[in-house]
Amino acid sequence: MNAPPAPTDHVVPDGFDPVPPPLTPPVPSPRPTPAEAARTLLAQTRTAALASLSEDGTPWASLVMFGLLDDGTPALLVSTLAEHGRNLVRDPRASLMVAAPQASPDPLASGRVTLSGRVERPTGAREGEAHAACLAAMASAKVFAEFGDVSLWTLEVERVRWVGGYGTMGSASADDYRTAQPDPTASSAAHAVQHLNEDHADALLLMAQQLGGYPDASRAQCTSIDRHGIDLAVFTPRGVAPIRVGYAEPATAADGLRAATVELTRRAREAAAG
Amino acid sequence: MNAPPAPTDHVVPDGFDPVPPPLTPPVPSPRPTPAEAARTLLAQTRTAALASLSEDGTPWASLVMFGLLDDGTPALLVSTLAEHGRNLVRDPRASLMVAAPQASPDPLASGRVTLSGRVERPTGAREGEAHAACLAAMASAKVFAEFGDVSLWTLEVERVRWVGGYGTMGSASADDYRTAQPDPTASSAAHAVQHLNEDHADALLLMAQQLGGYPDASRAQCTSIDRHGIDLAVFTPRGVAPIRVGYAEPATAADGLRAATVELTRRAREAAAG
Repeated sequence: MNAPPAPTDHVVPDGFDPVPPPLTPPVPSPRPTPAEAARTLLAQTRTAALASLSEDGTPWASLVMFGLLDDGTPALLVSTLAEHGRNLVRDPRASLMVAAPQASPDPLASGRVTLSGRVERPTGAREGEAHAACLAAMASAKVFAEFGDVSLWTLEVERVRWVGGYGTMGSASADDYRTAQPDPTASSAAHAVQHLNEDHADALLLMAQQLGGYPDASRAQCTSIDRHGIDLAVFTPRGVAPIRVGYAEPATAADGLRAATVELTRRAREAAAG
Repeated sequence: MNAPPAPTDHVVPDGFDPVPPPLTPPVPSPRPTPAEAARTLLAQTRTAALASLSEDGTPWASLVMFGLLDDGTPALLVSTLAEHGRNLVRDPRASLMVAAPQASPDPLASGRVTLSGRVERPTGAREGEAHAACLAAMASAKVFAEFGDVSLWTLEVERVRWVGGYGTMGSASADDYRTAQPDPTASSAAHAVQHLNEDHADALLLMAQQLGGYPDASRAQCTSIDRHGIDLAVFTPRGVAPIRVGYAEPATAADGLRAATVELTRRAREAAAG
């Protein structure tokens, strides 16, 4: 069968309700690059799905834990007792899918990333780093790594596809991925989202009205936060819009979200005061 | 490269501590078949990893949500905007990995299953069933299913590989999988494990000593429970052993775990009384 044409946006039926557009120009709102988002996601968990090729050429999905090297390369310890372990010995082509520890009740609204490439048996200093990364990641690695049927692999990443949720996605090259840095604020993001929604609903609404382009907003709920800005679900009489409000400067330290959101609130108040 | 030889057990180094063997004959302890375990696992979640084949023949791992037909067949709604959607149109070979909602802090000690087969576009009554299953599974399916770039697929299962945790695994044929039934007690299992460990540590220890073959046990912790029996981690001066203690009869109703564990406790007490 020929490859289907690649559409560039959803093909929507008649009568489909589009997202209400902004009524005023929103402030510039940078996002993490796909490479940064991917590096951040990989840094948050040690569980992934591996796709490898079975003996008959069919794709094989399996559960793995991975260690993470400093350049974002995943390291795996797998046994040839398992089908995926035999697959990697036979054919090095593999990909790894990592999903965000779930922030949203809808998994399709949460982030995930696929790293595609080839596995290699690391040597020299890289072998030591990969081994140490697996020991740090997996409770059972200390014993498991000594078994004669178990091999240590690195997944040498060739391409990266990141999906942030509905309508937010992008690709990254291997070089972009390796040189990007994980977001240092990621570990405090879930707490910050909860805190903003519980204690600062007024500030979020003001951000949506004054900076986000929705002066008719009646409510704004924070859906995620990162070192570059805040994602909001904005409720208006015209429907619900997902928007982004960026900081003046990206946060650079683990505890940087508070100062960044305080600055954003100050800016929204100034705009409201005219 | 030739296929590596398939080992049948871990190749352990010298000095490796084996699991301490039972000192007395344990009672017969049936387990769920791999097919039943797989059906039970699929019934517990709607999120999975899909492995498909990209245009260059490499395996591609991605996040999907799935609906579930009455015979255990997964149904998918995927867009050709996504690489996995284009992959399925080009090549129907695919597999789906589903991991248990995590009961153990160690993901490798928790259950997972891989279903391998081919996707098909369902027709007739099966199309209606697949569509309804996706609507029930995904918040966004109602809108998403109407998009012109989105297709409905069923994964026609050809083989099944189930891993229950360390050292517990098995395969099932497509027929075994389709005719097996999910465990009706699964939804109360997590609560039962917690209750047994918090309130019935004495009963668990007696089960390990009297029925499980470990009279030298000093403590027993329930690690999982199903309609056929209980898994315990048994602590002895010789080390920790994972054991299984089966009920006299499998539980057949959703609320059947309580009566089954009461019967097991009674049997352990009778054995202790001699």
